Amino acid sequence: MKFCSNCGCTVSYRVPEGDNRERAICDSCNIVHYRNPLVVVGCVAEQDGKVLLCKRSIEPRYGYWTVPAGFMELGETVAGGAARETLEEALATVELGHLFAMVDVVHAGQVHLFYTGRLISDFGVGEETLESALFSEDEIPWDDIAFQSGKFALKKYFEDRGKNRGVHVHELRRSPS
Amino acid sequence: MKFCSNCGCTVSYRVPEGDNRERAICDSCNIVHYRNPLVVVGCVAEQDGKVLLCKRSIEPRYGYWTVPAGFMELGETVAGGAARETLEEALATVELGHLFAMVDVVHAGQVHLFYTGRLISDFGVGEETLESALFSEDEIPWDDIAFQSGKFALKKYFEDRGKNRGVHVHELRRSPS
Repeated sequence: MKFCSNCGCTVSYRVPEGDNRERAICDSCNIVHYRNPLVVVGCVAEQDGKVLLCKRSIEPRYGYWTVPAGFMELGETVAGGAARETLEEALATVELGHLFAMVDVVHAGQVHLFYTGRLISDFGVGEETLESALFSEDEIPWDDIAFQSGKFALKKYFEDRGKNRGVHVHELRRSPS
Repeated sequence: MKFCSNCGCTVSYRVPEGDNRERAICDSCNIVHYRNPLVVVGCVAEQDGKVLLCKRSIEPRYGYWTVPAGFMELGETVAGGAARETLEEALATVELGHLFAMVDVVHAGQVHLFYTGRLISDFGVGEETLESALFSEDEIPWDDIAFQSGKFALKKYFEDRGKNRGVHVHELRRSPS
């Protein structure tokens, strides 16, 4: 951030009074502009013991497989976002289960939250997807999973075997999200 | 947002190509500026069956009691943020337990995440706090709890009785967060 989104003037970086972190502060209107982590929401959707993955048609990680996931939007819940991403990326409707994985992607300033889901429709190929398919645990292309957070979620999903064992937490600090 | 934070020019609101939501787009450098929900992290810290609450010295909800909580910062994990907020607001060190509550505060564009914790230090009064104290379940000032998300977390905390029963999810859409 170089300019104030409220008035268009320049910003300077300093610690506001009563704060303990450097923020962008407008040199004219004095508004403090905060930057905070973003939420990525995803869903491991199952049908007959197999889970739904999408092969990405966009960068980053073009051609790699992913659990349907993306940035949470204003106006929706975490669960709503997970269902929306599944619909957008795999044209699939899910009945959501429970929150089962949380990955802190610290270097990217992101928190990734994953729900379990039950596939209750056909599936297809959304705009950001080359191909969608169902995989049993043995069939998962582990070396071609796009993101480490998704790989963690898939591993924990199969370990849980359908039980709600609370939220599995994982932290990523350096490698690509 | 009225001005581009990258170049200071005006922005217009329209749906970018390949997107399905209106975003602020710079009229000059064409950067798309996204707005997404923020994460609030909190901790219910226990000692000898009592939980730590802080009476707020700031608005909103000045004078009301709250679970230590605040906006997650870049560079930290959800758990790290929950511990930091407890340190800042109650000058208390906690050993964190598990994630046990998630509240979608949809109207505020926030996701509130709560950890259990065990108080392993004395506590005191941070800058945003008038008074800190330990409360048993019977002593909680339920009518003077600052935020509905914190009230939900406290209720579920006592219902769980120390067990990890997964994450309790709650949705708030209209009333103040």
